[in-house]
Amino acid sequence: MAYDNQNIFAKIIRGEIPCHKIYEDDKTLSFMDIMPMATGHALVIPKCEAVELSDMPADYLQAVFSTAQKVMQAQRQVLNTEGIVQMQLNNAQAGQSVFHYHVHLIPTHVHEIGKHEDKTANHEELAKLAEQIRQVIV
Amino acid sequence: MAYDNQNIFAKIIRGEIPCHKIYEDDKTLSFMDIMPMATGHALVIPKCEAVELSDMPADYLQAVFSTAQKVMQAQRQVLNTEGIVQMQLNNAQAGQSVFHYHVHLIPTHVHEIGKHEDKTANHEELAKLAEQIRQVIV
Repeated sequence: MAYDNQNIFAKIIRGEIPCHKIYEDDKTLSFMDIMPMATGHALVIPKCEAVELSDMPADYLQAVFSTAQKVMQAQRQVLNTEGIVQMQLNNAQAGQSVFHYHVHLIPTHVHEIGKHEDKTANHEELAKLAEQIRQVIV
Repeated sequence: MAYDNQNIFAKIIRGEIPCHKIYEDDKTLSFMDIMPMATGHALVIPKCEAVELSDMPADYLQAVFSTAQKVMQAQRQVLNTEGIVQMQLNNAQAGQSVFHYHVHLIPTHVHEIGKHEDKTANHEELAKLAEQIRQVIV
């Protein structure tokens, strides 16, 4: 599938639309999912043009999971839970809806996955959570 | 959490118990999940002592996802579907049950995740699927 640079995450990377940012470095960006499957649901995306796993260069894969390690550690502190589901959907047939590679970090149990209500979260709460997570990222 | 080298995946790596192997290299091993959440459900594990994401060294992370790319491509050919859920559970609170880091590659839709019946699959079918996937790995 060809990469379309008008997808919402590409716009977030370019700063054309806002996000509740958690972490950023030269290869990755992490921010709150605005339709969370659980409280504290965060995303990590690479700053390269990749639709899904098969498009990801090795260096960006490594960078994404290095960032995921940092974010997970911070989520655990803020959410006061150890359980983090790491998930990444490949293709619309798996449920992928934004066609820029993105790793979900969801503070929940696997049995709660798939019960996603597709409801936008309260932005004040997201902003507060993002701030709390940012503060404990090491 | 301390790594216990008597877990089932450590035994599989050491060859002490069998698996339906798909792929192996110096840093990773891929084989069929014997309690599949969908037909063709495969696992990728690193050959290092890591309980979960926070324990994974960068080189093994890169190796695991490089192997996952190969396996996903082969699953798509054999299962005739594009949808692959990549998932990895951190801690028992997320539903992790084997405490050796393992990435799930599940040919299904996210809405089907969590409906896992905890039923062991037919081993003849698993052996046949593993053989089919092995044959198209590039």
